[in-house]
Amino acid sequence: MNFAKMHGLGNDFIVIENLNLDNIDYSSLAVKVCDRHFGVGADGILVVEKSDIADIRMNIINSDGSIAEMCGNGIRCFSKYIFEKNIVKKDIIKIETLAGVMVAELNVKDDVVKAIKIDMGTPKIDDINIIYKSKENNLNYKIKIEEREFDASTILMGVPHTVVYVDELDEKEIIKFGPQIENMAIYPHKTNVNFVEVVSRDKIKVKTWERGAGLTLACGTGSCASVVCSYLLNKTENKVEVELFGGKLLIEYLNDKVFMEGPAEFICEGKILL
Amino acid sequence: MNFAKMHGLGNDFIVIENLNLDNIDYSSLAVKVCDRHFGVGADGILVVEKSDIADIRMNIINSDGSIAEMCGNGIRCFSKYIFEKNIVKKDIIKIETLAGVMVAELNVKDDVVKAIKIDMGTPKIDDINIIYKSKENNLNYKIKIEEREFDASTILMGVPHTVVYVDELDEKEIIKFGPQIENMAIYPHKTNVNFVEVVSRDKIKVKTWERGAGLTLACGTGSCASVVCSYLLNKTENKVEVELFGGKLLIEYLNDKVFMEGPAEFICEGKILL
Repeated sequence: MNFAKMHGLGNDFIVIENLNLDNIDYSSLAVKVCDRHFGVGADGILVVEKSDIADIRMNIINSDGSIAEMCGNGIRCFSKYIFEKNIVKKDIIKIETLAGVMVAELNVKDDVVKAIKIDMGTPKIDDINIIYKSKENNLNYKIKIEEREFDASTILMGVPHTVVYVDELDEKEIIKFGPQIENMAIYPHKTNVNFVEVVSRDKIKVKTWERGAGLTLACGTGSCASVVCSYLLNKTENKVEVELFGGKLLIEYLNDKVFMEGPAEFICEGKILL
Repeated sequence: MNFAKMHGLGNDFIVIENLNLDNIDYSSLAVKVCDRHFGVGADGILVVEKSDIADIRMNIINSDGSIAEMCGNGIRCFSKYIFEKNIVKKDIIKIETLAGVMVAELNVKDDVVKAIKIDMGTPKIDDINIIYKSKENNLNYKIKIEEREFDASTILMGVPHTVVYVDELDEKEIIKFGPQIENMAIYPHKTNVNFVEVVSRDKIKVKTWERGAGLTLACGTGSCASVVCSYLLNKTENKVEVELFGGKLLIEYLNDKVFMEGPAEFICEGKILL
């Protein structure tokens, strides 16, 4: 079985083509090939399939065999693969996912995909009481934990995201306060927690404590939520460079939609021999 | 650059050929390709070089860029690669390493290497006061930690190994007592700690708390030390199957030497695109 390993800001995937729609158990395949010692090793697999409603279809299966609806870092890798492998040779690719048809806009130079812009949809800012139970406004409220007070905002960017502002990102502090904020009673479905350091009107640094997953290298929806909140609170403009541990994303909040632009890279390709 | 990813009981390696002895910085290459998110991902790289004193030369570089002298799981992968890629087509291969020339004996069926037996050298059982400071015998002494008492033995199998016997392997107990035993004052150079459950005269289960590394999937020298001690204490015969988390090894203690036989597997192969 042929494969390519790719990453988007350190979020890594094994891409496998199944254009003839052969009967493959994706879940057990993902568990086997994603194992980091006994397999190739990755956060998940991206399976390329034909689509009846879009240019191509992307299946994302996590390393534990569960199905993911969508993933910002994954779809950038997928888009680069589809273009550079001549499967869909378009600058704008419509990709069928379980979260609907996504549109990827490719920045191509000399037949190489340099960056991929994804329409990440519309954030839900009002009427979010399913994910945030409080009488206060969900934008710019106070959280107090031990002796520390944070300015916080909570919105829904597909999943619940709370954005808290700090003077300087400090991993120890994130590991300490991240899980405490995640599990506060005001969030009935828990929350992802994005620690944001505002560098300038067009640059922020973000580290995300992911709900159930902890500190990750780069969270796409968390970066989107951080820019939306920062713009709404007039801390930044609507187009902001987000610096993450794994690299940089350019996030634009325009006409109620969020666009995420970032890189994807090939690591290796060949044959799986398992 | 071509590569293969292989594993021996879950200890994984990227094999790279440099038969023309090109000027490559192995250390920075290892750091780059062994990264589990931004690279292929492995515990280390094995570089194939020509040798003037043996059939072939193996360089092991750890994922942090440091050089390893020898590695039991690594040399099995290396041997299988060398044979199946037709670099050295012999059943008995002499491999130059920083720990000297090692001899690998291959069990081949239909041109496929099923198992590899390595001469792991002679354990040092007497006169080990550099690694064990106590007036007691180093075979079968008592360790007491909190309310728990262990029967322990310490020998040198290249590196210091302490073997403690338990009725049943319990990971929680190993994580609790492993680091405490590792750091006891009677071991001036610290010690690896092998928790051993004797199943029968020819079968034991082993989990090793590695000095500085913690719980690992499979420790070759730890398995050797566990069989040597078990034989000397008349708990087992001199040829014993060792069950580890990552799989099985067959260890034989014969004429003062220890032989380790076990499998190696290809995971994938192709081109590194970094």
